[in-house]
Amino acid sequence: MRILGIDPGVAIVGFGIVDTDRAGPRLVKCGVVTTPAHTPLSARLNSIYLDLMELLDTFKPDAVAIEELFFNTNITTGIAVAHARGIILLACYQSAVPVFEYTPSQVKQAVVGYGKAKKTQVMDMVKRILRLQDVPKPDDAADAVAIALCHARSRTSLLSQKGENDICSTI
Amino acid sequence: MRILGIDPGVAIVGFGIVDTDRAGPRLVKCGVVTTPAHTPLSARLNSIYLDLMELLDTFKPDAVAIEELFFNTNITTGIAVAHARGIILLACYQSAVPVFEYTPSQVKQAVVGYGKAKKTQVMDMVKRILRLQDVPKPDDAADAVAIALCHARSRTSLLSQKGENDICSTI
Repeated sequence: MRILGIDPGVAIVGFGIVDTDRAGPRLVKCGVVTTPAHTPLSARLNSIYLDLMELLDTFKPDAVAIEELFFNTNITTGIAVAHARGIILLACYQSAVPVFEYTPSQVKQAVVGYGKAKKTQVMDMVKRILRLQDVPKPDDAADAVAIALCHARSRTSLLSQKGENDICSTI
Repeated sequence: MRILGIDPGVAIVGFGIVDTDRAGPRLVKCGVVTTPAHTPLSARLNSIYLDLMELLDTFKPDAVAIEELFFNTNITTGIAVAHARGIILLACYQSAVPVFEYTPSQVKQAVVGYGKAKKTQVMDMVKRILRLQDVPKPDDAADAVAIALCHARSRTSLLSQKGENDICSTI
């Protein structure tokens, strides 16, 4: 099973691809998709769309995991991120890849075992679970890997108990 | 000049197409694009994308006018609308149609002459300016026509004075 985790944004979209099998999760690739600054929002959205379609076509994930959006701080930035997230959902739908969403605390719970874990704890666990030399860089890529791992771990723990979609919602 | 006004949403996207020439503005068509309830957000976004692309291809507008988003009330609905708005911007970009955005008070100012006008006053002016028998229905379609009229009127009043893009921002 191949999972593509995505950390949405307008300037930077983080992505992390994780394969899971009986030997445990393995990091295939992670990185960021960036859009040119000082260009209209519509052009940046198109850039994200094209890059995401290429990523989906190249790596052919079985599932995409993405964080739910919360607007606690900067609402203007939040609106722009929601625009980009819409584009990501569209690209996944058009590539026939199911999308699952998780809250930040679900990601922390799945990766660290504690829903209020600090960011550094999440990053450290990402490194340990995937047996990496270093935490993935930049942060957007590391966040995306954590979301992919969250889906991998939620599936693993749930498959033995109940249906696979019980704690994550398809969107 | 043909202007497509859009009132974005997830369940309903209102649209209004207005032609402008020396004889004044004329309503070409208005209506709504709807998406099926009880389907995943990603499927609804794809439905909006396909319908918008068809609308742009059929009516070939020279410009699209859309309202800026403000999240004053329901933030969950607001996030979903921002997703849909991203899809609309993408469809416009891919159809090579420039998009202009206006605040609600700019729409009211342009249509009624008063930035704090009530919704009924806006609807009444839409009917009068376009010499219609009735206010367009449903409300989403009428709102979209008002946005198209705002762009038509902003252009007209500005073209004689300054550059055409001074009070509206391309996105």
